[in-house]
Amino acid sequence: MIPFSARRVIETALEEDLGLGDVTGSAVVPAGSRCRVAVVAREALVVCGAEIAAHVFWRLDTDLNVELALADGAAAEAGGRVLYVSGPTRPILAAERTALNLLQHLSGIATATRAYVDRLRGSAAVVCDTRKTTPGLRELEKYAVRCGGGRNHRASLADCVMIKDNHVAVAGGVAAAVQRARAQAPHVARIEVEADTLDQAREAADAGADVILLDNMTPEQVHDAVEVIAGRAIVEVSGGVTAESLAAYAAAGADVLSTSAITAAPRRPDLGLDFLGQQ
Amino acid sequence: MIPFSARRVIETALEEDLGLGDVTGSAVVPAGSRCRVAVVAREALVVCGAEIAAHVFWRLDTDLNVELALADGAAAEAGGRVLYVSGPTRPILAAERTALNLLQHLSGIATATRAYVDRLRGSAAVVCDTRKTTPGLRELEKYAVRCGGGRNHRASLADCVMIKDNHVAVAGGVAAAVQRARAQAPHVARIEVEADTLDQAREAADAGADVILLDNMTPEQVHDAVEVIAGRAIVEVSGGVTAESLAAYAAAGADVLSTSAITAAPRRPDLGLDFLGQQ
Amino acid sequence: MIPFSARRVIETALEEDLGLGDVTGSAVVPAGSRCRVAVVAREALVVCGAEIAAHVFWRLDTDLNVELALADGAAAEAGGRVLYVSGPTRPILAAERTALNLLQHLSGIATATRAYVDRLRGSAAVVCDTRKTTPGLRELEKYAVRCGGGRNHRASLADCVMIKDNHVAVAGGVAAAVQRARAQAPHVARIEVEADTLDQAREAADAGADVILLDNMTPEQVHDAVEVIAGRAIVEVSGGVTAESLAAYAAAGADVLSTSAITAAPRRPDLGLDFLGQQ
Amino acid sequence: MIPFSARRVIETALEEDLGLGDVTGSAVVPAGSRCRVAVVAREALVVCGAEIAAHVFWRLDTDLNVELALADGAAAEAGGRVLYVSGPTRPILAAERTALNLLQHLSGIATATRAYVDRLRGSAAVVCDTRKTTPGLRELEKYAVRCGGGRNHRASLADCVMIKDNHVAVAGGVAAAVQRARAQAPHVARIEVEADTLDQAREAADAGADVILLDNMTPEQVHDAVEVIAGRAIVEVSGGVTAESLAAYAAAGADVLSTSAITAAPRRPDLGLDFLGQQ
Amino acid sequence: MIPFSARRVIETALEEDLGLGDVTGSAVVPAGSRCRVAVVAREALVVCGAEIAAHVFWRLDTDLNVELALADGAAAEAGGRVLYVSGPTRPILAAERTALNLLQHLSGIATATRAYVDRLRGSAAVVCDTRKTTPGLRELEKYAVRCGGGRNHRASLADCVMIKDNHVAVAGGVAAAVQRARAQAPHVARIEVEADTLDQAREAADAGADVILLDNMTPEQVHDAVEVIAGRAIVEVSGGVTAESLAAYAAAGADVLSTSAITAAPRRPDLGLDFLGQQ
Amino acid sequence: MIPFSARRVIETALEEDLGLGDVTGSAVVPAGSRCRVAVVAREALVVCGAEIAAHVFWRLDTDLNVELALADGAAAEAGGRVLYVSGPTRPILAAERTALNLLQHLSGIATATRAYVDRLRGSAAVVCDTRKTTPGLRELEKYAVRCGGGRNHRASLADCVMIKDNHVAVAGGVAAAVQRARAQAPHVARIEVEADTLDQAREAADAGADVILLDNMTPEQVHDAVEVIAGRAIVEVSGGVTAESLAAYAAAGADVLSTSAITAAPRRPDLGLDFLGQQ
Repeated sequence: MIPFSARRVIETALEEDLGLGDVTGSAVVPAGSRCRVAVVAREALVVCGAEIAAHVFWRLDTDLNVELALADGAAAEAGGRVLYVSGPTRPILAAERTALNLLQHLSGIATATRAYVDRLRGSAAVVCDTRKTTPGLRELEKYAVRCGGGRNHRASLADCVMIKDNHVAVAGGVAAAVQRARAQAPHVARIEVEADTLDQAREAADAGADVILLDNMTPEQVHDAVEVIAGRAIVEVSGGVTAESLAAYAAAGADVLSTSAITAAPRRPDLGLDFLGQQ
Repeated sequence: MIPFSARRVIETALEEDLGLGDVTGSAVVPAGSRCRVAVVAREALVVCGAEIAAHVFWRLDTDLNVELALADGAAAEAGGRVLYVSGPTRPILAAERTALNLLQHLSGIATATRAYVDRLRGSAAVVCDTRKTTPGLRELEKYAVRCGGGRNHRASLADCVMIKDNHVAVAGGVAAAVQRARAQAPHVARIEVEADTLDQAREAADAGADVILLDNMTPEQVHDAVEVIAGRAIVEVSGGVTAESLAAYAAAGADVLSTSAITAAPRRPDLGLDFLGQQ
Repeated sequence: MIPFSARRVIETALEEDLGLGDVTGSAVVPAGSRCRVAVVAREALVVCGAEIAAHVFWRLDTDLNVELALADGAAAEAGGRVLYVSGPTRPILAAERTALNLLQHLSGIATATRAYVDRLRGSAAVVCDTRKTTPGLRELEKYAVRCGGGRNHRASLADCVMIKDNHVAVAGGVAAAVQRARAQAPHVARIEVEADTLDQAREAADAGADVILLDNMTPEQVHDAVEVIAGRAIVEVSGGVTAESLAAYAAAGADVLSTSAITAAPRRPDLGLDFLGQQ
Repeated sequence: MIPFSARRVIETALEEDLGLGDVTGSAVVPAGSRCRVAVVAREALVVCGAEIAAHVFWRLDTDLNVELALADGAAAEAGGRVLYVSGPTRPILAAERTALNLLQHLSGIATATRAYVDRLRGSAAVVCDTRKTTPGLRELEKYAVRCGGGRNHRASLADCVMIKDNHVAVAGGVAAAVQRARAQAPHVARIEVEADTLDQAREAADAGADVILLDNMTPEQVHDAVEVIAGRAIVEVSGGVTAESLAAYAAAGADVLSTSAITAAPRRPDLGLDFLGQQ
Repeated sequence: MIPFSARRVIETALEEDLGLGDVTGSAVVPAGSRCRVAVVAREALVVCGAEIAAHVFWRLDTDLNVELALADGAAAEAGGRVLYVSGPTRPILAAERTALNLLQHLSGIATATRAYVDRLRGSAAVVCDTRKTTPGLRELEKYAVRCGGGRNHRASLADCVMIKDNHVAVAGGVAAAVQRARAQAPHVARIEVEADTLDQAREAADAGADVILLDNMTPEQVHDAVEVIAGRAIVEVSGGVTAESLAAYAAAGADVLSTSAITAAPRRPDLGLDFLGQQ
Repeated sequence: MIPFSARRVIETALEEDLGLGDVTGSAVVPAGSRCRVAVVAREALVVCGAEIAAHVFWRLDTDLNVELALADGAAAEAGGRVLYVSGPTRPILAAERTALNLLQHLSGIATATRAYVDRLRGSAAVVCDTRKTTPGLRELEKYAVRCGGGRNHRASLADCVMIKDNHVAVAGGVAAAVQRARAQAPHVARIEVEADTLDQAREAADAGADVILLDNMTPEQVHDAVEVIAGRAIVEVSGGVTAESLAAYAAAGADVLSTSAITAAPRRPDLGLDFLGQQ
C-alpha cells in the first residue's frame, strides 16, 4: 500500500513531462524495441519511493515487469540496485525522469532524516518534521521522514491546536487562547503553544498546554525552560536545530527536535538508470 | 498574469493543509477579528512568488486586501517587506504557511540561480535548468529560474529531441538516431545529443546535432570537445557544474551550463509573517 | 471564508445537475428575464450553509446579487427568510435545487446538533461527531456540527491515534498497542483507546491512553468505568447515545458524547425558494 | 459494472479520510500483518454498495482478496455477512470506515425504498425518487433506489422539462410555458407540469403536458385531479407522500409517488467489520 | 451564464497550450507592453462562443477588458468584429489560440446548423443533433446547435430510452424491450425505438414507442413508414440526412431530422485576431 | 502505451455520456446478458484509436475481453473489423458510443493526413499539423497525424519560439524580436518567424530565424521566397495549403506544408458496432 496521494502526484508529474508526448521516443525508439534496465543508487543513501517509482512505470504500461530489490527505508550502498524494469523501451524511457525525480526527492528526505536520527542514538529525544513541506507532496514527504526513522508533526491545520504569537495576540493572551481551544477544539486534539521566552514557556505550562514549542532558543535557554515546565508538557524545540546542535538540545532536556531542514530541500542523492540490454 | 499552473498548485497545497479545516483558527481566533500583517524577508534573497502568494490569500477570502511591495525578480534585503495583507484574521492565518511555503520554495530557486548568474558576469555563457524538477511544480520552478536570471532548458518530453545513451543503444548508433529524429520529429524541434567522450562529441557534430551535451567532463575535456565541435553545434555542459566550476567551464568555451542544483533543493531562504496589529 | 472544500462540493453538485444543461430553463424561460427570489425556512431550524448557497448562485453567474439575511448558526423561525437573490432568472432557477440541497443537508445537521446540545445545558459534557460522514462532505458536515454548537472528533485518520479492537488484536494487547503508538505516532497526536468492558477501560487507563472510548455501555456501566479511569483520561461515550439517553450518560460522568446520528442522516428541514417577482 | 461515478466518489472519500495518512495504522499495526475480516449486517437490511465497497479495498491495495457474499438488492438478515476481505491488515483497516460509510449510506436508501415498495404490492403505482439527493452522490443514490425496487425520476436538469410555478410566472402561463417547451426542447424529452390546484391540473392537461405533478394534495384532491386529467397525462404525486399515506394516494389513482424521503437522510442501517483472525 | 462545462473546457484547453509557459511571450514581449485587439470574422458565419472566448482571456488575467460586439447566435458578415480585448499584451497573445479554437469550433457548428435550418423554412420539421459529439465538448456543441437554430436530441445515456437493434436482440424482440422499458425506466423518459424496415416501424408503433427512429431509409420509405405509424409516435429520420436530402425527408412526413454532420466536424470558419495598436 | 492524455479524455467522455447512468441498459438489458461484438469500418479508412477504444471498454468493466484486429496506422478496407469485444452486454453497449466517437474522430484525422501524405510521394516535403486542435484533444490529434504519416508542429506555447506579426509589433521589428528570443528563450528552442511578404521573409532570414513560415502566399510567391531565403532556414508554408495545392507548394521548394485541415474537422469516417451474438 503506497501512500494514498502518490497516485495523484504521479499523475501530475507525468502530465507535466509527458502530457503532450515524447518526441524523442516517438521519433528515435523503434516501436517494437524492448529492454531491461536497473535503477541504481550512485551514492550511499536511504531508499524511499521504490514502490512509488514502480507505479510510475506501470502508469505508462501495465505490462512492464518491475522487480523491487530494496524496500523503502533500506540503506543502499553506492552502486546498489534499487529496482529492475523490463519490457517495451518507449514507456521505460518516457517514465525514467519522473520515476527518478520522485525517488531522488524522497530518498533525499529519508537520507537526511537518517543522518539526524543517527546523531541522537542513545537519547530519548526524537527528530520530527514541520508543515514546511513542498506544495502537493506533504503526505509523501512525511512518509519519507518515517522511512528515515524520524517522526511526524501534525499533518495539517486540522490536526492539533498550535497557538502561535499571532493567535495569542488576537485571543488576548496565552491563557485565554488555551482556554478557548479547550472549550472549542476537538477533545482528541493536543494543544501546543509556541514560546519565545522563559516567561512564555511558564505561562504556557501554567495554562495547561500539552506541548510547548521553544522557538529559537539556545540549548542553555532550553535547559532553563525545561526546568520551568517541569514535566507538565512535552517540550519541542525548533528554530536552531541543525545536525551540529541536535545533541546539545537533546541533552538540555528537549523531547522533540523539529526541523524543516529534513523536508525542505535536503540534498538530492544521485540515482540513475542503467541500461542492461535490449531484449 | 501569474504562471498558468499556479492556480492548480495553490489549490492542491491549500487542500493538503486546510481541506479538513483549521482547528486553531476556528477555536482560538474570534470570528470578527481583523488584522494587518506583512510578509518579510528575514535574510537577503531574490523574491519569487509574491503575486502567487497574494493569490493564496485571495483563494481563502476574496475580500483580503493585498499590496505587493516587491516584484518577482527583485532583490530583498534582510528585513525587507515583500507584501502586506489586511482583513479578517482567520483566512490570513490559515493561508500563512501555504503562502510562505510557496514563496520560500520559489525564492530559494531564484536566489540560487542569481548566485550562479552573478558568477558568469562578463561571459557569454548562460546558466540553465534541467527536467529534474519537483513533481507538480515544473512551470513554477522554471519561472523562478528566469526570475533569477537563468535560462530554461526544455519544458517537457514534447519539446526538443534529446538523444541519450539509451536512445543511441536502441537506435543503433548516434548517426542513426539523429537521422531518425530528423525524419520523424517536428521540424521546429532542435536535436540535442548527449556525449560522454570526445569521440561521441565528434560523432554527434558529424551527425548534425543542433546542441551537444557534454556530460561529466572536466573543463579541460570541454575545451577539447569545443575544438572538435568547432562551432557546428551549441555546446552545453552538465554533470560537474557547481558554483566553483562555473567560470572554468565558461572559459573552456561552453555556451550553456545546465545544472539541477538551482531547482533541486536549493536552500530555502527565511521568510516570515509579521503581525502589524489588529484592526 | 467558507469552508475550503465547499468549492469542490459546489462544483461537483452543479456538474451533476447542470453539466449537460437545463432543458427547462433554455426552452421555457425567456433569455432576458430577470427576477427576485428569497430562500425561506418553511419550519424552525438552525441555519447552516447560507454563504455556501450564495456561492452556488455566484458560480453560475457572478452578476447575481445575493443578500444574506441570516448567518450560519442562527435560528430561523418558520417562514424566516435566509437569503435573497436577484438578477437573471435562468441561473437563479438552474441553481435552485443545488443551493437548497446543500442548505437543507447542512441545516439538518446543525439543527439536530442543536437539539442534542440543548439537552446538555447545565452539564460540562459535550456532544461530538464521528467519522461516519457522507462521502465527500466531511469538512462541511463537521462545520455544520460546530454551527449547531457541537464539537468535532478527529477529522481524518491522520489526526489522533484511535486504537480499536482490531488494532489491539494485531498489536498483541492494549498496552503493546499504546506503547507502539507512543513510540511512533506524532507527539502532537492524542491516543484514544476503545473499551467495551470495564476491564478494557482499566487496561487502557493503565496503559496511559489520553482518551478512552466507552462503546455500547449503559449509563451504569459508564459510571463504573469513570470510577475506574479516575480522571486519568478523557471519557468518551459512544454507541447508545440518543437524545433520550444523553443526560444520563452525562450524569454518569462522561466528558464527551459522540454520535453519528447528528451527521448521518438527520431529518432535512424544509427550505424553499419564494418567487418575489419579475424585474 | 459498478455505477460510473463510484470511482470518483471512492477517490474523494478516501482522500478525505486517508489523504494525509493513517497514524494509527502506521504506528500500531506491524508492517507484515495480514488478516481476514467480514463485513456484517448487524440488522436486517437490503444490501446496496457491496461491489463498490470491494473497490474501496482494491483502491488501497490491488492485492486484497475480496469475496462478495450478497449482491446489491439482496436482503440481508441480522448477522448476515455481506463480503469477506483478506490480505495485509493496514489497507484493510484504513479502508474500513470509507467502505462502511458507503455501504451504510446506500443500503439505507435501498432499505427505505424497499419498505415503501412493499406497501404498494398489488397496486400499479410506483415509488420514485427526486433530485433532492446528496451533493456528489446522485448516480449512486438513484442506483440504490433501483436496488430497493423503486424507480428513478429525472437524473438532471438536462433530462425532462419540468415546469414549476416560477417557470409559469416568467413564461406567462401554463399554456405558454408548455408551448415554448414543445417548440424548443428536445423531442425526446417529456414535459411535466407541477400543479397545486385542480384548476392548474386541468390547465396542464389541456396544454398537453405528458406528466402532471400534483404537489401537496390530499388523497381526495388527487382523486379529483385524476378525474379531471382523465388519462391524458401520467399522474405523479409528491409533497405529502409518506409510508402511511402511500396506499391512499395509489388508491386515489396516482401512477407515480415521488418522495425525497427515500434518498434524503433515511436511517442508516448498522453494518460493521468483524475480525476473523490474523493470517 | 455560459454553459456550465465551459470552465472545465477552458481550463483543459489552456493547460494543454500554456501549462508549461509561453516561451515566445516570455522572451519576445516586453513585460509592460499593453495593446488592444479585435477578434474578427474573416468570412460570414453564425457566432457561437463569444462569451466563452471572453472567459478564456479573463482566466489568464482578470484585469483584461473585454467588450462583446456580437452575441451568440448572431450572424457576422465577413470582416465583422466579434469582440475587443485590451490590456497587457502577454496574456492576450497567450490566450489567442485557445480563444479562437473554441470560437471557431462552436461557430462552425452554429453556422452549419443554420444552413440546415434555413433549408427547412416553411416546414414543421426540425433539425437535431446526435450523441456523436467530440469527447469533452458535448454541452458546448449542443449549445452551438441551439445557437444555430437546431434542436437537441438526448444529452446522455441517462435521458431517454433509446432501443436499438442490439437491445432488441438481448431483450427478445421490440415489444419485449419496450415493455421492459415501460416497467423500469423513469416515467419522465420517452422511449424511442430504432427501425430499419417498415415492419420494424410498425412493430415499434404497435409496442407503444413514443418516438420511432427511421434509420437509413430513403424519403420514399420514410413516406411509407409515416403512413404505417399513423401519428402514433414522433417520426425521426437519421442516416441519410444531408443538406440536399433534408427537404425531401421533411416532405415525406418526418418530424425530426437528426444528423451528426452539424456537430461532427463541420468546416471551421475563419476567425482571426487583429492587432489594433499598442497602448 | 497509449498516449498519456487518453485516460483523461476517456474519463471525461464517459462522464458526459454515462455519469448519471444508462437508462436503456438498466431497464432493457437483462443483468446477466453476455454478448460478442465487433467494431467494423464501414468504409475504407486509416485506423487510429483502436487501443484507446479498448481502454474505453475496460474502463467500464475490467473483465471485458478485447482483441485488436488492426493496429493504429493500418489501412482498413470497407467492412474490415478493427476489434472484437466480448463479455457482459451492459458495459459493452454503454461504452459503444464513446468508443466509436473516439475512434471516428482520430481515424478521421489519420485518414485525412494519409490522403495529403500520399499526394507528396516522391517529394521531400512533409505535411504537418498546427495548434488549431480541438480543446482537450491535442495530444491525441497529433498522435493521429503521426499515424497518418504526417509530422507534428510544436505541441504547445512552451515548445518553439513562434514570432508572429503581433510579436513583431510589440518587440519593435523582426530583428529585435529574434534578438530578444535568442537572448532569453531556451537554447533548445528553434525560432520561427511568420512572413507575409518577400521582404519579411528576407528580414527573417537575415535575422537568423531557424524556420520561416510563409503565410498565405501563392506557390509562385513561395518560389521567390525560397530563393531569397536561400537555404538559411527551413521553409514552412501555411494558409493556402489544400489537397489540390500541396504538390505545387512542394515543387516551389517548401520543406514543410502545415495545415489545420487535417485536424480541424476532417470528415469522420463511418465505423459501427456489429452484434455477433449472445453468449
